[in-house]
Amino acid sequence: MSEDPAALARQAELEALLARPPVPTRRPTVSALEERLFRVFPVLDHGFVRVVDYMGDDGAIVQAARVSYGAGTRATRNDRGLIRYLMRHRHTTPFEMCEIKLHVKLPIFVARQWIRHRTANVNEYSARYSILDREFYLPATEQLAEQSASNRQGRDAVLDPETSARVLELLRRDATTAYDTYHHLINDTGDGTPEDPQRPQLARELARMNLSLNYYPQWYWKIDLHNLLHFLSLRAHAHAQYEIRVYADTIGEMVADWVPHAWEAYEDYRIGASFFSRQEVAILKRLLAGEDADMVLPESGLSMRERRAFRRALELGPPKRRG
Amino acid sequence: MSEDPAALARQAELEALLARPPVPTRRPTVSALEERLFRVFPVLDHGFVRVVDYMGDDGAIVQAARVSYGAGTRATRNDRGLIRYLMRHRHTTPFEMCEIKLHVKLPIFVARQWIRHRTANVNEYSARYSILDREFYLPATEQLAEQSASNRQGRDAVLDPETSARVLELLRRDATTAYDTYHHLINDTGDGTPEDPQRPQLARELARMNLSLNYYPQWYWKIDLHNLLHFLSLRAHAHAQYEIRVYADTIGEMVADWVPHAWEAYEDYRIGASFFSRQEVAILKRLLAGEDADMVLPESGLSMRERRAFRRALELGPPKRRG
Amino acid sequence: MSEDPAALARQAELEALLARPPVPTRRPTVSALEERLFRVFPVLDHGFVRVVDYMGDDGAIVQAARVSYGAGTRATRNDRGLIRYLMRHRHTTPFEMCEIKLHVKLPIFVARQWIRHRTANVNEYSARYSILDREFYLPATEQLAEQSASNRQGRDAVLDPETSARVLELLRRDATTAYDTYHHLINDTGDGTPEDPQRPQLARELARMNLSLNYYPQWYWKIDLHNLLHFLSLRAHAHAQYEIRVYADTIGEMVADWVPHAWEAYEDYRIGASFFSRQEVAILKRLLAGEDADMVLPESGLSMRERRAFRRALELGPPKRRG
Amino acid sequence: MSEDPAALARQAELEALLARPPVPTRRPTVSALEERLFRVFPVLDHGFVRVVDYMGDDGAIVQAARVSYGAGTRATRNDRGLIRYLMRHRHTTPFEMCEIKLHVKLPIFVARQWIRHRTANVNEYSARYSILDREFYLPATEQLAEQSASNRQGRDAVLDPETSARVLELLRRDATTAYDTYHHLINDTGDGTPEDPQRPQLARELARMNLSLNYYPQWYWKIDLHNLLHFLSLRAHAHAQYEIRVYADTIGEMVADWVPHAWEAYEDYRIGASFFSRQEVAILKRLLAGEDADMVLPESGLSMRERRAFRRALELGPPKRRG
Repeated sequence: MSEDPAALARQAELEALLARPPVPTRRPTVSALEERLFRVFPVLDHGFVRVVDYMGDDGAIVQAARVSYGAGTRATRNDRGLIRYLMRHRHTTPFEMCEIKLHVKLPIFVARQWIRHRTANVNEYSARYSILDREFYLPATEQLAEQSASNRQGRDAVLDPETSARVLELLRRDATTAYDTYHHLINDTGDGTPEDPQRPQLARELARMNLSLNYYPQWYWKIDLHNLLHFLSLRAHAHAQYEIRVYADTIGEMVADWVPHAWEAYEDYRIGASFFSRQEVAILKRLLAGEDADMVLPESGLSMRERRAFRRALELGPPKRRG
Repeated sequence: MSEDPAALARQAELEALLARPPVPTRRPTVSALEERLFRVFPVLDHGFVRVVDYMGDDGAIVQAARVSYGAGTRATRNDRGLIRYLMRHRHTTPFEMCEIKLHVKLPIFVARQWIRHRTANVNEYSARYSILDREFYLPATEQLAEQSASNRQGRDAVLDPETSARVLELLRRDATTAYDTYHHLINDTGDGTPEDPQRPQLARELARMNLSLNYYPQWYWKIDLHNLLHFLSLRAHAHAQYEIRVYADTIGEMVADWVPHAWEAYEDYRIGASFFSRQEVAILKRLLAGEDADMVLPESGLSMRERRAFRRALELGPPKRRG
Repeated sequence: MSEDPAALARQAELEALLARPPVPTRRPTVSALEERLFRVFPVLDHGFVRVVDYMGDDGAIVQAARVSYGAGTRATRNDRGLIRYLMRHRHTTPFEMCEIKLHVKLPIFVARQWIRHRTANVNEYSARYSILDREFYLPATEQLAEQSASNRQGRDAVLDPETSARVLELLRRDATTAYDTYHHLINDTGDGTPEDPQRPQLARELARMNLSLNYYPQWYWKIDLHNLLHFLSLRAHAHAQYEIRVYADTIGEMVADWVPHAWEAYEDYRIGASFFSRQEVAILKRLLAGEDADMVLPESGLSMRERRAFRRALELGPPKRRG
Repeated sequence: MSEDPAALARQAELEALLARPPVPTRRPTVSALEERLFRVFPVLDHGFVRVVDYMGDDGAIVQAARVSYGAGTRATRNDRGLIRYLMRHRHTTPFEMCEIKLHVKLPIFVARQWIRHRTANVNEYSARYSILDREFYLPATEQLAEQSASNRQGRDAVLDPETSARVLELLRRDATTAYDTYHHLINDTGDGTPEDPQRPQLARELARMNLSLNYYPQWYWKIDLHNLLHFLSLRAHAHAQYEIRVYADTIGEMVADWVPHAWEAYEDYRIGASFFSRQEVAILKRLLAGEDADMVLPESGLSMRERRAFRRALELGPPKRRG
C-alpha cells in the first residue's frame, strides 16, 4: 500500500496522532489493545481495519454480571470461571457491557453483507457528499474459484492460471472504465472546482451509480462484544465468503487482545462447539451404548447430507457399506 | 415494462394468485389495501413496490393504546381524535402494533440508503446464490442534474439535452459492459448448465462484484407503522435523493389506504409540521409582539442559512435591507 | 375465573366479537389459529394469553427465503424441507417474516423478566392512568418450594402442607393489605369520582408504588416468529422460573397451530438439540472410538458440574468409580 | 445516607478504587467526566446514579461524521458548528458513536418505565439469585400530590401536612410489613445459612413477589449518546413522573460535563425547541402577517387544548374574548 497517495496521507496523519502523549484515565484500560490504536491493519488489497476506541475489558463483564461497584475484588481465576460459565449458559447481557469502535475500509459487496447485522452503529463515508478514491478490489489468483456444484453459495476448484489472468483482466478493465466515467461525470479536481470548465459537474449522488461493487467505501462501526462475537461466529465461519472472512479474522485477533478470557470461552463454547439435533442426540446415545454407526445411521431418518456432516463432526469415517 | 420477460412471468404468476378466491378471517381487514395485494406498483424504470401482507388497521392503534379486548366499541370519531393525540404527543408504541410487508425491487445504491434503517426485517434475493437480471437504472433526462453548489448532497440545474444524452450513453455503455462480463464469467444458462462448456463457471459470489450500483436486486421488507412513518419522513423529504423519494411516495399512498386516520395525523403533525429552535422561538415571540423581522433577525445569533430557512418557513419574504 | 366480574365482562365482550361474521381476505390465513382468535387461554390463577392478530404462515417463511412472488408453487413437502434447512443452519431472517400479536395478563415479577426481550413491541395498561384490578398471584401449593442449594436461581423440595398454608396466608394477607391501602389512597369509584369526598385522591402514579409484585397488569405484545422462538427457548426451558414457563408453554401451543413446520423444526433443532463444547466434542470422539468414559472424563479438564451434565445428556449413567 | 450499612460498604469500596492511580490511555478522555468516576450521585431517598465508564467525546461525534482518521485537525469552533448542524438536521448516527455506562439504583416502578427504552444494554441485580436490601422509596412531603383532574397522568395540588403524614405512614407500614414477610420467607442470614433452622428457606424467586414497587433494585445500564438524549428528552420532560425526572436531571448534568457541545445543541434544538403542526404553522403565518389571534384562533380548527398550548408556547396571553 506504500505508494498509494491516500494511504500515505493516512499514514502521516496516524503517525502524528501516535506521537501525542497518552493521557491518564480511571477507566478500565487494556494495554495490548492500546498498542493497536492509531494503527492500520491491512485486509485484502486496499482494505483495512483499525480500532478507534473501546470500552471495558474482561473485568467489566464480571462486574456487570455481579452488578458490583469495583473492578473485581476476587481473584482473576474466578473471573475466568465466571466468564466461561456465562458463555456456556448463554447469559449474554454481561458481554454487551463491552463496546468497540472500528474504522473499516471494505469493498461494497462486503459492506452489503456486513450491514445486515443491525445491532451496531454505523457512519459511512457518503458518496452523495464525497468522491470515492480510485480503489477497487481484485481477488488474488488463489481466490479465483469456480462456482461450487454441491453448495449453491460456495466456491470450488481454483481457476487455472491462464483463465485466472483473463478474469482479472476483465475485472480490472471494467472497474477502470467505470471509474473513468465516474470521474468524467463528476468533473471535480477534489476541491469543488471543475477539471473541465466546459462541462457540467453531474450530481455526485447520480454519478456514483456507475461504480461497481468492488469499490472501497469506508465506515465507522461500533458494536458491543456480544453482538460482535455473534457477527464473528457467522462471518469467520468456513461457509462465509472469503472476502468478509478475512475481515472477521483480523477483528478476531483484536478481540483476543482485548478480552482474552471472553475470547477463550468463545473459542471453546462457540467456534469449537458442535450442536446436534434431537435425532442426532438419539443416535449418539445408541452409538455410545455400543451400536454400530453403519447399522444405526441408515435407518435414522437423517438425510444423506446430515449423515455425512454427522460422521465428519465426530470423525466416524465413511460407512463400510452403503448408508 | 410489458415486453420484459421477467416482468411478464411475474405478471402471470400474480394474476394466477389474484384469481384465487379470498378466504374468511376474523382479523382486522382493510378492503382498500386488500385491493392492492398481488399488484405491482412500478417505480423508476425497472423497480416496483408491492404489498405482500399487513397486520392491523387504524382500530388496532386505538385498541393497543387502550389495551382493550375488542376492535373498538366507541365511535370512529373518537378513534380519530385519539390517534391524532397519540401522534401529536409522540406516543409512538401504539403505532408499532401495525405491521406491513413489502416486496421491493430497487437499484443497489438506493438499497444501500434504505438498509440504514435498522428496525425492519429484510430478506434479499442473494447474488451469492442466484443470478441477477440484466436490469439497470437509467435516470429520466429530467432527473439528470448538476451537483448543487450550495448543498453538498443535492442536485441543481437539469443538464441540457445534449449533455444529458451523452451522460445516459456513458451510463448505458458501462452498465451493459459490466453485465456482459458478469454473464460471461458466470457462464450459466440459468439452470446451472454452462453456456460454454469450454469455460469454467466463476463463483457467483465473485462475479457479482463487477456489477454497478444501478443494478436491481429485490427484497422482502417488513416493518411496523411507527418505524415506517419515520422512514417515510426522512425518505419522502425534499432533501432525500429523488431515486429513494419515489419509493417513499409510492409506499405513502399505500399507507394512506391502509390507516387513513394515522396518515392524516402524520401529515398534520410530522410532514406539514415545523420545528423551531430555542432561539427561533424567542424571535417568534418578539415578532408576534410587534417587532420588525428586519430588526430582530440580524441581531438574533442565527446563521445566515438559519435566517433564510426561518423566513421561508414563515413566508416572511426577503429582508428589505441586508440581514 | 367464572365469578370474577372483570373476567365476566371480558367474556361478554369477546363473545360479542366472536359473533361477528368473518370477512374475506387475500392474505395468508391459518384456520387453526383463526379458531383461537377472541378466545382467552388462562394461565396461573388470574392470568391469560390470547392471540389478537397474526401475519404469515409456514408458506410465508418459504416465500421470503426465496423472495418469490407467490404463496409457493412447489409441493408442501419441499416447504417443510426448506424450513428445516433454514432452522438447522440458523438462517433466521425468513422466520422474522411472520408476526404475532398477543394480549397477556401476567404478574409484575413475570412481566419484569419478559420485558428484558427487547425485540418486541409493547403497550402496557398503565397504572399511571388507570386503576389496577384487585387481582394478585398466589402460587398453587405444589409450586411453593424451597430455595435450591445447588442452583442459586432454582427451586427444590416442595414445602410441607402446613408450612405451605402459612406461606400462602402471609402472601395473601400482605397483598390484600397493599391493595386496601392502594384503593384507599386512590379514593376513586372507578369513574373519577371519590369514594370518600372528605379525602383527597392521591395521584395514581404515586399510589401504585404500594402494590406488590404479584399484582397483574396486562399488555399487548407483538413479536416476529424468530424472536418469539428465541424467547420460548429461554422461557420454556427447564431452568426458567415456573411462573413464566407456563406462559411460554401456552404460547408454544399457539405457535404449533400457527406454523406447524417451523414448530417441528424448532423442536428438533432447538429444544431437543444438544450443544457440546470443543472439549466435549474431543471426549465424544474418544468415546466413539471405544475408550471408557470412566477413564476419559476424569482427565478431561471438564468441571464436576460439566461432567455430570455431559453424562446426563448422553445417558451415560453415573461413573462406576469416582470421577 | 451516611448511616446505612450498605451505603457505607459501598463508600469504602469506591474510595479504595479512587485511591488507585490512573493509567495512561490513547483514547479520547474527558477530564470533567473522569472526576465523576467512582463517585455516587444520590437521587431520591435511597437511589443513586454513577458513571462506570464512557467512550468518546465531542470530537468523536465530529470524527464519525467525517469518517476521518484523527481526533479532529480543524479548530474546535468548527466542531461546535458541525455538531449543531447535525443536531438541527437530525443526523443522528454520529451521536451514536459515544457510549456511556451507568450504575443506577432506583425504585421498581421507576425501573419499569425506564426499561421501556429498548436500545440500551442492561444487567440487573437479580432477586432470583440475591436478596434485596431493606430499602424502599417514600416520597418527600412536597411530592405527595393529588391526582390531576385535567391530566389523567399528572399530579396536582400537594396534600395538606396532616393527610401527607397519614399517607406516608401507610406507605411505610405496608413496605415494612412486606419486607418483614419477605425476610421471614427467605430465612437467610445473607450467606445462605438459615436464620431459623426450623423453618424452610422459600425460593428467592418466589419470596420476592411480596415486595412492593417502591423497593430499590439496581442495574448497570449502557447506552449510546443519541439514544440517551432521546431518553432524557422524554424523561426529563415536565410531563414525566417526578421520580424518573430526577434521575434524568442527574444524568443530564453528567452529559453536560461529558460532551458540552452536544449538550448545548440538544438544549437549543430539542429541549428548548418548539414544534408546530401544519395547522399551527398556517396560523403563525397569518399572525405574522398582522392578523389578530383572537380572530384567527377560534376559527382555526384547533381544539381548545391545542389553542391554549399554542398561546402558552408563544406567550400570546389569554384571549380577550371567548376563543
